[in-house]
Amino acid sequence: MFRTHTCGDLRKNNTGSQVTLAGWVQHKRNFGGVLFVVLRDRYGETQTNFRPENKELFEKAESLKSQDVVNIIGTVVLRPSDARNSKMLTGDIEVVAESLKIFSRSKTPIFSIEDEINATEETRLRYRYLDLRRPIMQKNIIIRHKTASAAREFLNSEDFIEIETPYMTKSTPEGARDYLVPSRTFSGRFYALPQSPQIYKQILMVAGFDKYYSLPRCFRDEDLRADRQPEFTQIDIEMSFTTTKDIMDLAERLMAHILHKTIGFVLPLPLRCMTYDEAILRYGSDKPDLMIPIEIHDITDIVPNCGFGVFEKAVLNGVIRTLPIPRASQFTRKKIDRLAELAKEWGAKGLAYTKFINGKFESGIAKFLTSEFKAKLIKHLNENLDEDCMLFFVADRSEVAAKVLGGLRVMLASELGLIDKSTHNVLWVINFPLFEPNEENPKGITPSHHPFTSPVKEHIALLESDPLSVRADAYDLVMDGYEIAGGSIRIHEPELQNRIFRLLGMDTQQVQKKFGFLLEAFEYGVPPHGGIAFGFDRLAMLLAGQDSIREVIAFPKTTAAQSLMDGSPTKVDIEQLEELSLKIIEKKDKE
Amino acid sequence: MFRTHTCGDLRKNNTGSQVTLAGWVQHKRNFGGVLFVVLRDRYGETQTNFRPENKELFEKAESLKSQDVVNIIGTVVLRPSDARNSKMLTGDIEVVAESLKIFSRSKTPIFSIEDEINATEETRLRYRYLDLRRPIMQKNIIIRHKTASAAREFLNSEDFIEIETPYMTKSTPEGARDYLVPSRTFSGRFYALPQSPQIYKQILMVAGFDKYYSLPRCFRDEDLRADRQPEFTQIDIEMSFTTTKDIMDLAERLMAHILHKTIGFVLPLPLRCMTYDEAILRYGSDKPDLMIPIEIHDITDIVPNCGFGVFEKAVLNGVIRTLPIPRASQFTRKKIDRLAELAKEWGAKGLAYTKFINGKFESGIAKFLTSEFKAKLIKHLNENLDEDCMLFFVADRSEVAAKVLGGLRVMLASELGLIDKSTHNVLWVINFPLFEPNEENPKGITPSHHPFTSPVKEHIALLESDPLSVRADAYDLVMDGYEIAGGSIRIHEPELQNRIFRLLGMDTQQVQKKFGFLLEAFEYGVPPHGGIAFGFDRLAMLLAGQDSIREVIAFPKTTAAQSLMDGSPTKVDIEQLEELSLKIIEKKDKE
Repeated sequence: MFRTHTCGDLRKNNTGSQVTLAGWVQHKRNFGGVLFVVLRDRYGETQTNFRPENKELFEKAESLKSQDVVNIIGTVVLRPSDARNSKMLTGDIEVVAESLKIFSRSKTPIFSIEDEINATEETRLRYRYLDLRRPIMQKNIIIRHKTASAAREFLNSEDFIEIETPYMTKSTPEGARDYLVPSRTFSGRFYALPQSPQIYKQILMVAGFDKYYSLPRCFRDEDLRADRQPEFTQIDIEMSFTTTKDIMDLAERLMAHILHKTIGFVLPLPLRCMTYDEAILRYGSDKPDLMIPIEIHDITDIVPNCGFGVFEKAVLNGVIRTLPIPRASQFTRKKIDRLAELAKEWGAKGLAYTKFINGKFESGIAKFLTSEFKAKLIKHLNENLDEDCMLFFVADRSEVAAKVLGGLRVMLASELGLIDKSTHNVLWVINFPLFEPNEENPKGITPSHHPFTSPVKEHIALLESDPLSVRADAYDLVMDGYEIAGGSIRIHEPELQNRIFRLLGMDTQQVQKKFGFLLEAFEYGVPPHGGIAFGFDRLAMLLAGQDSIREVIAFPKTTAAQSLMDGSPTKVDIEQLEELSLKIIEKKDKE
Repeated sequence: MFRTHTCGDLRKNNTGSQVTLAGWVQHKRNFGGVLFVVLRDRYGETQTNFRPENKELFEKAESLKSQDVVNIIGTVVLRPSDARNSKMLTGDIEVVAESLKIFSRSKTPIFSIEDEINATEETRLRYRYLDLRRPIMQKNIIIRHKTASAAREFLNSEDFIEIETPYMTKSTPEGARDYLVPSRTFSGRFYALPQSPQIYKQILMVAGFDKYYSLPRCFRDEDLRADRQPEFTQIDIEMSFTTTKDIMDLAERLMAHILHKTIGFVLPLPLRCMTYDEAILRYGSDKPDLMIPIEIHDITDIVPNCGFGVFEKAVLNGVIRTLPIPRASQFTRKKIDRLAELAKEWGAKGLAYTKFINGKFESGIAKFLTSEFKAKLIKHLNENLDEDCMLFFVADRSEVAAKVLGGLRVMLASELGLIDKSTHNVLWVINFPLFEPNEENPKGITPSHHPFTSPVKEHIALLESDPLSVRADAYDLVMDGYEIAGGSIRIHEPELQNRIFRLLGMDTQQVQKKFGFLLEAFEYGVPPHGGIAFGFDRLAMLLAGQDSIREVIAFPKTTAAQSLMDGSPTKVDIEQLEELSLKIIEKKDKE
């Protein structure tokens, strides 16, 4: 037997027992002639000691180095009271070693196996097996596991069926690039790795599985932003004979169950529900972080005759919004200039400001403002106007004002430590626009989500006349400023679907090529249906208190979609390509 | 609200309630002026009726066709006692319709939505959404779901952590062809879809996760046999600081839990354990079906001087084995000839036979046999020799005798209905050969499983001198004649691993290229470890009582690796290939 206990098991009441432990040597030190060797495994650490009386055993133990893997048999003894360690689960005891077996030796690890290290992320990914030994990473991976378990437990209890959808499939309509898989048996043809199981889950609804879920891997060949991965996981849910309310109710109960089971957080239900318009107006974002105690205020109505020419002019075809930030004194001239630069990068023409200190507006645009406007502004902002308050203003198109002030809100709140990290906030954002402007197609619109998203009933009449004003029967779940889930009611009426395709400028042939098999399925009796998909990696990240999804993925890829540990992607033999009827085009003009 | 009850819910005690049902029209008939419409969903069927008094409603209902999707509001009434249907969950009641809403119309389905259909499998796969509506398919997919749930439930309770391993990865060493995924960012380089997570799960052991599991998709680009799929699912398990016994104990408790939770079958533990040699000798197979009540008998020892020259000669460098089959009278001359042909196809020189009827040997080789040998044979076979018994003999190399008689055993038992289908048999087969003969490498051997499989300790000394006699510390779980799981203790000692690589004729460079990152990981402290992987599709197939894994996969591919529903693999745009720096080689000489 390799072990009677794990390295996290032993307590006072084990004193006197002979035990067998197995694990990695965490550290070793000689103290007063006795050799202390701390063993580590997934469950904790246990201190063992080797006494000089048994010379052979002592010498063997002296040869141990960090990360050697060993088996130790010994007797549990209570530590002297001044040597107890309350920070260690097993800190009351130690094990007096009687035998030592060395399973394997380790080279000197590239970095130490502890939470705080100064290795680069590149080094950590290159030696991921060492990185994953660190307690924080073990905790992250275990939280991910618990998140998945809790999700399955809840959905099973709600009579959902987990169904695996294929990974070698036909292109999906998610808008990103597909990863392709060449077929050997049909030369010149390709499978696509799915960007999501969207079409298959809708087909499962046609097939009569009215409550489906799955935790599928999804694949997108994108130019990766900092926190994207080429392969990622969803909690994917679809339901038939269901309403928006049913799906939102289910999803929020699922969230509450997950939060409770993973981190013991009690989520008050029902969740707050905010429209897209309100989110953009007040927070400048469709995924507002409500743990940031500041908001954007639209002051367009009170601006006429404010005294500041720029505002007075801008208000004619735009909006004026302001973001009050506490502690105006922190904002040096230099810092303000930097923020103004940023605002310009984000599309604003400029960033006006003034300070409100001891009841008076000073510096920035203060000198231009009429006292009448100042009074109105104080009244309008009311309790949002602290003593010692910085006010930033953007006068521009509403999208620009939202983007700039929303961006500043998040950035400054983080810099100033205004975000309460001790708790979590989850809310719904609803009433998203069904379409976004897009210059590439005849009607100038593109689906905000995917073309199967249903418009809200009351807006169907506006589809042709004013498509950009049409709202979708769609909902996003937002946690701590991250979009963690999104879903919609799908279109199940062929006529409506065809109107949408026409609006998107897709002709019958294109539609047939892309979605033909789904639309064909819809001809054989399709139930009303809808669903939601959670970004599982991001959810696990938030639950683990991390700020990158790479911290909750065992073997992630870099932003260049490379696996530093195994070296993939790699070159392959020419024979393999020949079997696939493929040839590599050498790009001489590329570096 | 779309429904107050499912179509499987309503019982006598709902009589008098107003209910709302939603589902597919299963059938419709007019009986005595009343229109009966049976609705179907995942949960069952419910009969509704439309009475002629409400003309408008009646006419709307008359327009319904099979597979239309509808909403019906009505009142539950008790059926007249002579109209009750005890085969239907809801057979005591019917719903008198008060309103009808048609969600969607269906074209005439290609085949009827019921268990017994005569559509080809091709048609079923092409219209999988209709096929999956059939109750038997719904049951199959639900059993698959329950199998996965039960597996996770058990492994979670045993403190295992589910960890997702990557799908875009480096080649794995499973021996089959990899599916490749071209990289866009690194032109000319490729990811491989994993044939199994073998290397990653071993790295997770190095990383200190001592109890890992996952239900990963695996990918193999093989020339598909009837019951293989290019993508399939495993229950993949790996443990550190563990013994063969620990893993087998865990796996059989997992099996017992799954069997109980899915089909209510109580599996007696511990399972029987049979050596590979015994399985081959007695059943001619390393996955013996013990529900077949017949066995192969080796009679080599009693053959000398048996009187039949062919046997007497063959025994000099081979074996003589016999397979007794009940009901000799069934075996016509024609049937025997067909079996002899088959035996030759399987590699035998011929197939001898005789019949034992009413205590006497007759026909076939009976006339050559001495009465002394006949007496010995009766004694040797003892109770295995029925009155009215057919005896087939193969005199050949032991592998040939095993293959031919093992094949006949399974085929004839199935044809003659000798297999008890009412129960299940699960056993271990152990002590597999570590290597198999292979002419392609210098030493003429290839790993039976993968090159990380540990030999049993006692045979390590024989590695170089007699590699084919070395047994592996490996174990297969066999259920009803199918291998449903296989695993082994892995090598964790670098010296032993290098000896194995040398034996397999792999030089350092090859080893580095293929497994370099695993071996590097092993240099930083590797624990003793081992694991097992279940063929999840096959397990689900057996639990569902099916004989093809395609019956338990929602969207399977054909043996040509094609998806008939979505048409994949498909051609892609030339631009997509250009982005991947790839060009298709036209094979003019191929058709």
